[in-house]
Amino acid sequence: MVTSMEKPYVVGMDIGGTNTVFGIVDSRGNVLASDSIKTQAYSVIEDYVEAVCSKLRPLIESFGGVEKIKGMGVGAPNGNYYNGTIEFAPNLPWKGVIPLAALFEEYLGVPTALTNDANAAAIGEMTYGAARGMKDFIMITLGTGVGSGIVINGQLVYGHDGFAGELGHVIVRRDGRPCGCGRKGCLETYCSATGVARTAREFLVARPEPSLLRDIPAEEIVSKDVYDAAVKGDKLALDIFEFTGRILGEALADFIAFSSPEAIVLFGGLAKSGDYIMKPIQKAIDENILKIYEGKTKLLVSELKDADAAVLGASALGWEVRE
Amino acid sequence: MVTSMEKPYVVGMDIGGTNTVFGIVDSRGNVLASDSIKTQAYSVIEDYVEAVCSKLRPLIESFGGVEKIKGMGVGAPNGNYYNGTIEFAPNLPWKGVIPLAALFEEYLGVPTALTNDANAAAIGEMTYGAARGMKDFIMITLGTGVGSGIVINGQLVYGHDGFAGELGHVIVRRDGRPCGCGRKGCLETYCSATGVARTAREFLVARPEPSLLRDIPAEEIVSKDVYDAAVKGDKLALDIFEFTGRILGEALADFIAFSSPEAIVLFGGLAKSGDYIMKPIQKAIDENILKIYEGKTKLLVSELKDADAAVLGASALGWEVRE
Repeated sequence: MVTSMEKPYVVGMDIGGTNTVFGIVDSRGNVLASDSIKTQAYSVIEDYVEAVCSKLRPLIESFGGVEKIKGMGVGAPNGNYYNGTIEFAPNLPWKGVIPLAALFEEYLGVPTALTNDANAAAIGEMTYGAARGMKDFIMITLGTGVGSGIVINGQLVYGHDGFAGELGHVIVRRDGRPCGCGRKGCLETYCSATGVARTAREFLVARPEPSLLRDIPAEEIVSKDVYDAAVKGDKLALDIFEFTGRILGEALADFIAFSSPEAIVLFGGLAKSGDYIMKPIQKAIDENILKIYEGKTKLLVSELKDADAAVLGASALGWEVRE
Repeated sequence: MVTSMEKPYVVGMDIGGTNTVFGIVDSRGNVLASDSIKTQAYSVIEDYVEAVCSKLRPLIESFGGVEKIKGMGVGAPNGNYYNGTIEFAPNLPWKGVIPLAALFEEYLGVPTALTNDANAAAIGEMTYGAARGMKDFIMITLGTGVGSGIVINGQLVYGHDGFAGELGHVIVRRDGRPCGCGRKGCLETYCSATGVARTAREFLVARPEPSLLRDIPAEEIVSKDVYDAAVKGDKLALDIFEFTGRILGEALADFIAFSSPEAIVLFGGLAKSGDYIMKPIQKAIDENILKIYEGKTKLLVSELKDADAAVLGASALGWEVRE
């Protein structure tokens, strides 16, 4: 991390399927100011970039203007670290290949680097969170989709093309649920927040038993509702977490066979559902793990606040960009 | 690679579920002499080590004795690079944790390093074979079992405990075929040479159609028989390759989502079955790959001879051992 007195700040931005969060970060990892917009509200990419900039410029001005900004780091689904592009992101409104880093450099006048949103979160976790000091870990982000950031030998894994680590699109059920990516049975169709809501709707149709979730119109159920019902002891809600945790744990057992990480760090709202989700995940890992890996990989919950982790992680890229 | 005039040779050894092959290698990667023993013939590890040494000592003497040997490198299933041990290998006769490197140092008087047999093959492929110059690739070994060696950023992936890369034990069919590891549905139960023979026996029972394979007693069928029948146009044999290739291709599509490698290199007898197996594998990859990876990862067959790749790869470790 190269800082200078002249340019003491970076901008970090996280593009989620629902919200885009951005902030000004100092060299010690403090998020000094932040704001957000709704990602889906802008179907034209230029409108989106301008919407971010119109909220970001006043923040930047309050810290001395763009001449005080070393660079901008962006975490985005399907973000290509090598090219600064977002490519074919199923959960974002813009299709094809989007030159996002170049657009921000043009609109904001700040050098910009970009990576997968989950990679950015992994960098944040490694620098400030539960993975401090670890050289081998896997970050799994459980949000609108499921993302991952893989660290091996202390380095983010980008692969030969900049796109490594799309573990949300490992197929966990052949011919399973249709996924936004056009395929079927991807991990994220079951274990994202939207996957949990989908499971709730399926269970409510398939099962006759009473449930607090029946008080909510089926199409309006979100994963938080399932959590709230589980806290009240609702059997169906508990079964939804059991189902979700089992599928995630089975997948994690396979991921461990790939890179044998010291820890798997879970990030996002679902990971904060405590034992309701963590116990089924751990149980499924234990039941499905190859003997040589038994009991070796820690299952951890992110120690960073949701927004901060992604913004901090992305912002770390801002220190590295070429001016 | 540190060589010296005093110690111009290394020993490379590959422990397979069926054969153990070892040889003397010079600094330019020539296998100068080699021999082998049957792995399963020795249920006591000390007997096995002595059997190898009794054949290896004369070879070493013919090149000037142990004082000319820089070190020994061993590739073994479940080999732990960090500890020099073989741990809980399902396809080997010795159970528990075997301090193999220490045993060879004692019996042979040569400093010894050890890694996963598939990792050793990957090192061989990277140095002398189809992966020359690549920084990101995955080696899949199709033998008695299925192994893997993963290279990321030009480095072998060992994981936090030395055991990364057991992709033969990723579960491809929940509650599928029982595996030697004690679990069910592992990739190697379908796509190893023994998996292919198992598929042949299953297909022969389940299907009424005639097949050249019916001329062979079911329990004696090996994967080479399936290849020979396929070459003669045998429909059932072709279907066996189709089935095997599809499962392997589906799994490879998931592996690509992990590390986005430049190539996947297939190694072992099955990989030499040509289009009979390669076409179904490529088809299944294409049908199951996430859009951002489409057409990017090359599917290659090892360019090294079976025995040499493993012996050469393992021998490379011999240059690095501490004396």
